[in-house]
Amino acid sequence: MIRVSVVGAKGRMGSHVVDAVNGAEDMELALALDAGDDLKNIAPANTDVVVEFTVPSVSLGNVLTLIAQGVDVVVGTTGWTDEKLAQVREAIANSPRPDSQKVFIAPNFAISAVLADYFATKAAKYFESAEVIELHHPNKVDAPSGTAIHTAHGIAEARKAAGLGDVPDNTETDGGSRGQVVDGIHVHAVRLRGLNAHEEVLFGNAGEQLTIRADSFDRGSFMPGVLLAVRKLASDAPTGLTIGLDNFLDL
Amino acid sequence: MIRVSVVGAKGRMGSHVVDAVNGAEDMELALALDAGDDLKNIAPANTDVVVEFTVPSVSLGNVLTLIAQGVDVVVGTTGWTDEKLAQVREAIANSPRPDSQKVFIAPNFAISAVLADYFATKAAKYFESAEVIELHHPNKVDAPSGTAIHTAHGIAEARKAAGLGDVPDNTETDGGSRGQVVDGIHVHAVRLRGLNAHEEVLFGNAGEQLTIRADSFDRGSFMPGVLLAVRKLASDAPTGLTIGLDNFLDL
Amino acid sequence: MIRVSVVGAKGRMGSHVVDAVNGAEDMELALALDAGDDLKNIAPANTDVVVEFTVPSVSLGNVLTLIAQGVDVVVGTTGWTDEKLAQVREAIANSPRPDSQKVFIAPNFAISAVLADYFATKAAKYFESAEVIELHHPNKVDAPSGTAIHTAHGIAEARKAAGLGDVPDNTETDGGSRGQVVDGIHVHAVRLRGLNAHEEVLFGNAGEQLTIRADSFDRGSFMPGVLLAVRKLASDAPTGLTIGLDNFLDL
Amino acid sequence: MIRVSVVGAKGRMGSHVVDAVNGAEDMELALALDAGDDLKNIAPANTDVVVEFTVPSVSLGNVLTLIAQGVDVVVGTTGWTDEKLAQVREAIANSPRPDSQKVFIAPNFAISAVLADYFATKAAKYFESAEVIELHHPNKVDAPSGTAIHTAHGIAEARKAAGLGDVPDNTETDGGSRGQVVDGIHVHAVRLRGLNAHEEVLFGNAGEQLTIRADSFDRGSFMPGVLLAVRKLASDAPTGLTIGLDNFLDL
Repeated sequence: MIRVSVVGAKGRMGSHVVDAVNGAEDMELALALDAGDDLKNIAPANTDVVVEFTVPSVSLGNVLTLIAQGVDVVVGTTGWTDEKLAQVREAIANSPRPDSQKVFIAPNFAISAVLADYFATKAAKYFESAEVIELHHPNKVDAPSGTAIHTAHGIAEARKAAGLGDVPDNTETDGGSRGQVVDGIHVHAVRLRGLNAHEEVLFGNAGEQLTIRADSFDRGSFMPGVLLAVRKLASDAPTGLTIGLDNFLDL
Repeated sequence: MIRVSVVGAKGRMGSHVVDAVNGAEDMELALALDAGDDLKNIAPANTDVVVEFTVPSVSLGNVLTLIAQGVDVVVGTTGWTDEKLAQVREAIANSPRPDSQKVFIAPNFAISAVLADYFATKAAKYFESAEVIELHHPNKVDAPSGTAIHTAHGIAEARKAAGLGDVPDNTETDGGSRGQVVDGIHVHAVRLRGLNAHEEVLFGNAGEQLTIRADSFDRGSFMPGVLLAVRKLASDAPTGLTIGLDNFLDL
Repeated sequence: MIRVSVVGAKGRMGSHVVDAVNGAEDMELALALDAGDDLKNIAPANTDVVVEFTVPSVSLGNVLTLIAQGVDVVVGTTGWTDEKLAQVREAIANSPRPDSQKVFIAPNFAISAVLADYFATKAAKYFESAEVIELHHPNKVDAPSGTAIHTAHGIAEARKAAGLGDVPDNTETDGGSRGQVVDGIHVHAVRLRGLNAHEEVLFGNAGEQLTIRADSFDRGSFMPGVLLAVRKLASDAPTGLTIGLDNFLDL
Repeated sequence: MIRVSVVGAKGRMGSHVVDAVNGAEDMELALALDAGDDLKNIAPANTDVVVEFTVPSVSLGNVLTLIAQGVDVVVGTTGWTDEKLAQVREAIANSPRPDSQKVFIAPNFAISAVLADYFATKAAKYFESAEVIELHHPNKVDAPSGTAIHTAHGIAEARKAAGLGDVPDNTETDGGSRGQVVDGIHVHAVRLRGLNAHEEVLFGNAGEQLTIRADSFDRGSFMPGVLLAVRKLASDAPTGLTIGLDNFLDL
């Protein structure tokens, strides 16, 4: 049994993690802490892996403390800069167990989204045309989504590496309907009440189309990815800092 | 049996019409004419309904001649202005059979597209959010398509009539991915090799989505609509000029 | 302001209704009752419309009591037989206000699903082919869904009324993949973790396809339909018993 | 310039190949032969790669002749048995250039279909649920398609290799709507006028869905795959017999 502690256990994501750990047959919930609780209660004696889902302003401090406590950490909080990551790497080097300490940070724990992004990059060189449509709830303030920009970049890089030129497009008259061009790839953002976070990548050749779509219907969609990361840290993940769930997928 | 003549029989669309008429159990092909043939060979003695699919520069002349010949006409050629339509109406008034002469002109013979447009207008008032995505082959020069603009206008009018306000949209930062706003409705245009003409209308409320999609895979997609129009003219279509396939659908 | 009381207010659906009423600008929550509470507290002095979402075993009794109290009722509980409906009609006839008493019962409050079903029936006669795919969470015990069967029947009836024959299908060898044939229409049921309740209706002619899809992502999807019914009962709904949300949609 | 000859050049597929070769900037059409023509006109002096698209009854003979002529062959004809393949391998061993002779046979040249199948196999182990829907024109006699069966097998094998159990499914009452179970995976076959060949693979976890869809709209959809195979044979394909387009994709 993997003993899992949760930091931010009463938060929107953390409470889902508590439920997910309780529902996993190969895990048991160790400590569930939230604001005001002392992180130093978490130690190798009671915990194998900690899942940290808090807010950017406190996450770095939490992670540094947990490394000093000698426990492995899966971090779901966002807002990581190069500078912050450097501090994490330094803390790992100075940790009680530098040769086995593991920290994992991921911008997106939705397995479907990570796979869609990866498959899009692999498929890109085989198609004349490629476009990205992302669809989100209307409260999102930025458009297009960071994930869609990432996908468009990945497609563009794969096309360039394969020597493909521009996507075909004879549009002469347009009032903005063709979307935002990210690195040569057209990206469209839909905002619709009822949706959560969705991405569709369309590839086309003469006579054929390939469509890859990832739907994240709710926060529960991140839990399979979180549990996968916990299992990786408790088994064969590399020591040190790993960034991105694609590193833990067998692709 | 409805006796059908085709004008423009060797053209891209006309040749499909000839095949479709030959394949219809309740029709027989009368005359198949093309450039250089004398339209005056078409007369009530041999023809019930003529299907005219040529080019805008000759279509008006053809239609006026056919009206003078006393046969009913289904027109698939595009490019009709108010002035041209007025000439058609005048020719009908002065025709050999003003009380029974029928002429039908349609901008779009794809039944699926006409139905999608109609259903979108009916659904519009019941949803907080609505957006339109049209997808076409990359040789199309205008974006968005005229059909998508028509659909967006229909949705906008239905929303206003029902007292709905703006669609919810908290986007603060966008480099163009949110598409073109047509009468308050966001319209996106995708251009993809392999596609022909497609439209998807998305409606959203909290927790639910309605999607209506019309795909026209090739020119054959217009034939069911052409045959439907021919049957209507041969039976209970109103006399005079009718514009738009929705007039012949029982909705 | 429409004064709305909720019966079953602590239940899965009822708690959503309480939130939806509190969030509606034209409504105010009157009483929120649950098991053990006395329904006789609900009366015209404090309530215009009651929303009843409980369980089949108590719903009939609740509705009869509320009719006797002289308040209009929107019923979301399922399990209504012809016999139960007859009792409701009799109670209306003997109610304190037989000329204005209104009761509304609906098997499905998701507007998208009701519209999809209606549009499918209207479109059916214009297409050679039609199939239905319903998709639900894997805990659902019956397949296909009642909604899918209803849609298939509606399509089949519309085809027969229009004189259409069987859908084209040259399948000679099949081990069950062609699904269940409901009144001549093939119906497929998908069960997938992560889904809630979804239905897709596909229509096809040579060269064209029309797709109508309704997605219900969660229980919140019923609230727009519940609020619409409340507003109808508080305004121009007919007196007596009305069954089915399509009666309240302007189609 | 790759010099390409076509055998079966007047056939349904072969005529598309002639057009595709003529449209490719890096290829030139050498000989275009059909029934009655002498294959011995094809030789290294005029041809680098031959594309053979005929019928199963003559394809083996053609391929053996072409190998004896010393030219590389891309074979699109279907109907290859283990016995026939053994004859091809033997002919290669006895060919004029056994150390460089290349023959390529593929059951499916649609790149989108081959990629979808591959991606489905890679994704399978990360999802609780998986189902396959294939959609074809109604003249197809077998259901489900061979491609769908292949995909289902691939998913099932990947699940077993990862130690996953059965897909979740609490269906108790079903009249056939749940489709055909292929190696534990439910497969559904839709037959719809207007469609050609399409496959959709659905994966689900709590809160998330991944959808991979390949559309083959017409025979032209095979040409990018045919050209890719020609280029591979003219460059770095391995000598001997290669079966399956996935061997030529960089995945």
